[in-house]
Amino acid sequence: MTDPMDGTESTGGEFRGYRDTAQVGLVPSPRPISNDSAPVVVQSQLEQMRAVESQLDEILAAMPQPEPIELAVLDAQGLLCAEEVVSQRALPAFDQAALDGYAARADDVYAATPNEPVELAVVGESVAGAGAPSSIGPGMALKVSAGAMLPGGADVVVPAVWTDQGVVRVAVHAGPPAGSYVRRTGDDVAPGDPAVQVGTPIGPAQISLLAAVGRERVLVRPRPRIAVLCAGTELVDVGTTPSPGQVVDVNSYALAAAARDAGADAYRSGILPTERRRLTEVLESQLLRSDLVLIAGTFASGGFDMVQEVLAELGEMRFRQVTMHPGPAQGFGRLGRDQIPVVCIPGEPVAALVSFEVFVRPAIRLMLGKRQLFRRTVQAIAGQPLASPLGYRQYLHGTVMRHPDGGYVVEPVGDGTEALLARMARANCLIVIDEDVTEVAAGGLVTVMPLLLGG
Amino acid sequence: MTDPMDGTESTGGEFRGYRDTAQVGLVPSPRPISNDSAPVVVQSQLEQMRAVESQLDEILAAMPQPEPIELAVLDAQGLLCAEEVVSQRALPAFDQAALDGYAARADDVYAATPNEPVELAVVGESVAGAGAPSSIGPGMALKVSAGAMLPGGADVVVPAVWTDQGVVRVAVHAGPPAGSYVRRTGDDVAPGDPAVQVGTPIGPAQISLLAAVGRERVLVRPRPRIAVLCAGTELVDVGTTPSPGQVVDVNSYALAAAARDAGADAYRSGILPTERRRLTEVLESQLLRSDLVLIAGTFASGGFDMVQEVLAELGEMRFRQVTMHPGPAQGFGRLGRDQIPVVCIPGEPVAALVSFEVFVRPAIRLMLGKRQLFRRTVQAIAGQPLASPLGYRQYLHGTVMRHPDGGYVVEPVGDGTEALLARMARANCLIVIDEDVTEVAAGGLVTVMPLLLGG
Repeated sequence: MTDPMDGTESTGGEFRGYRDTAQVGLVPSPRPISNDSAPVVVQSQLEQMRAVESQLDEILAAMPQPEPIELAVLDAQGLLCAEEVVSQRALPAFDQAALDGYAARADDVYAATPNEPVELAVVGESVAGAGAPSSIGPGMALKVSAGAMLPGGADVVVPAVWTDQGVVRVAVHAGPPAGSYVRRTGDDVAPGDPAVQVGTPIGPAQISLLAAVGRERVLVRPRPRIAVLCAGTELVDVGTTPSPGQVVDVNSYALAAAARDAGADAYRSGILPTERRRLTEVLESQLLRSDLVLIAGTFASGGFDMVQEVLAELGEMRFRQVTMHPGPAQGFGRLGRDQIPVVCIPGEPVAALVSFEVFVRPAIRLMLGKRQLFRRTVQAIAGQPLASPLGYRQYLHGTVMRHPDGGYVVEPVGDGTEALLARMARANCLIVIDEDVTEVAAGGLVTVMPLLLGG
Repeated sequence: MTDPMDGTESTGGEFRGYRDTAQVGLVPSPRPISNDSAPVVVQSQLEQMRAVESQLDEILAAMPQPEPIELAVLDAQGLLCAEEVVSQRALPAFDQAALDGYAARADDVYAATPNEPVELAVVGESVAGAGAPSSIGPGMALKVSAGAMLPGGADVVVPAVWTDQGVVRVAVHAGPPAGSYVRRTGDDVAPGDPAVQVGTPIGPAQISLLAAVGRERVLVRPRPRIAVLCAGTELVDVGTTPSPGQVVDVNSYALAAAARDAGADAYRSGILPTERRRLTEVLESQLLRSDLVLIAGTFASGGFDMVQEVLAELGEMRFRQVTMHPGPAQGFGRLGRDQIPVVCIPGEPVAALVSFEVFVRPAIRLMLGKRQLFRRTVQAIAGQPLASPLGYRQYLHGTVMRHPDGGYVVEPVGDGTEALLARMARANCLIVIDEDVTEVAAGGLVTVMPLLLGG
């Protein structure tokens, strides 16, 4: 990569958008077009189009909040707690030694030094898992292991390594202050204390605490169930060798993977039937079992207005052009008896995954109860000039990396004449160029959304 | 939080390490101890102890590399590709329209403007999924949908919105240059091109590409199988109400969760039997079905040397004190016929999860084939003074947040006299204080390891 700081252009070539993907209404021609021609068409179109934020707001506002479910604590990992877990017990449940050593009275050992050790009588032993040991009086010690119950009368544990580790009598070389190496009943959690609160993400530390307060199961926000479907007469399943004109259904795989990565329980239902009654049946059954139905390719022409027609019979579905690229053709509605949200996105695989990022991933995170719906973005230096159509928010796949001098540098993958899926597979981020920006110079700052898996 | 930049102490109180957890051999007493006393004991002990890095190096060097397995592409998500996937087909498989419009000859439409449109005869239609359409000659156009096969003779697709969208004849208002809006055979992937390479993490974009080249299954580095066990006579299962002296087994839950989060297939085998023959049977059967066996609590005293004894019968097991806090008591060996790595970590739940982070998570990532074994660390400003024992690498749970003026600020959770599990559950990072540092002033820089789930 050339140094973006010196403003020179990368050898990767200038980005040319016009062969990227379907860009209805864009003005990509490198030839000058007179000002009263094509741009006028575009301007009038833009006015009828919808902003990305408006489409997103409508989708997010319509998301159901699935009912909390009770899961075994290990299955709750990664989900948000949906109850206030109050401890019925104290942690620790009893005063105990924090390490192996000798339970003693702090007053007895306070003055101990290696040169003037204090000798105590070892009156017994308390091990972890055993019941209550007998008490100790002045001048006495009880050998204890970490986690063992503390005898009455003891207020300190002298670590074994600070003693001669005697069996009948023990010489103490240093005395810690009262309370040292002792875990008191309820120090960790007192009965009635909230252990895990509503909205807390459940990870290993929360699972540790839930187990400690005796919980085998916990109420959580469930993973939303998402059916992934795709439409298109040209589609054949991945196991099939496509005939001329046919293409393999990649979207139901890629979108199911993306939905799982976002935290959903995703079901790949595959290619929608082309027979109308069967199509209605499939859509109706998916509406019954899903929190959200995701369909790729409903804007494809070629007889596939049938999908739009059947969807319209099931409720109000709105198909719109959204001012984004790729993937302006977007649809949303709430269908069926339960008004299940249905999101329709373009069938072109790159546009489908971009649309998923923009509209579906935040919707899944909202249903999961996450506070942070959107991916973190960073500002990065463009390694080469970037072009973007006026009025459209452009999402370009790119590779972002740390610059040796600090900050980030981003390069689009490929130059627009290159492979689509193969190019996307090399990217680790989306470059987001705002609607009012048409050009970013090499060395300029752009917004970058790293596409971390599970992030 | 007080501003750490002005150096004042937080109201959270000064960190006091001496009640944190088992700290055998530390010198935590706030009272002055004469220089020739306890520190001497500690110094001689430190010499026999092992550095964190040495222990980690031994564990990582012994990790097996599980054989690649073939999985359905959706199940491969998150794993690393273990084969060079070469495409047997071209993508796209045929020249096609990139959007809805009219396939035409660039020479015919080159001069078109809205004021002087070019008229073409519409000789038919090509839709996505259909076979090869007839060719076009000069002055002709074929209506095409996105993804439809391009007719012979056409070298450009005029977007529908740049025309009057005529049915018999079409008026073209602007002509894009040759090749525009056309996807050529093999533009994306040519037959023989590598599609997904060895070592590539498989995410939605790779799944999209695998499906497109016709792959239903792919060879990947498998998730390592990890058995999680715990030892201790004091332990009872989470469903049981503990009697006095008993504690609930939290480690097998927390460590299984941590192992799954790190990418392993973790099996919670629970509490080891206390009957010797049964104990041997359980350990032997876990060695047969696991890539790694993780045991928490083998250093607990109270008759539990039996676990160490039985492990020693199965192979060479080394128990050592490692210069880390919490959790200096560590063990590692390779046991059984297949020399399966066995990692023994302390039973105290906070020390167990810290030990997991330090030794087991990198080992899991190594088996997964990940290049980045360790969590990313950042430098953060300490919000309050931090103390650490000389010679030990200290891991403190903390909360790290962005500072409004840039950078990060970190506070330890609690002040050391406070709850352990409840405290850990509030943390979002580990503060790492090096062996040669005993004190970090408020406002000083410390290394912080954010504990992102799945990160």
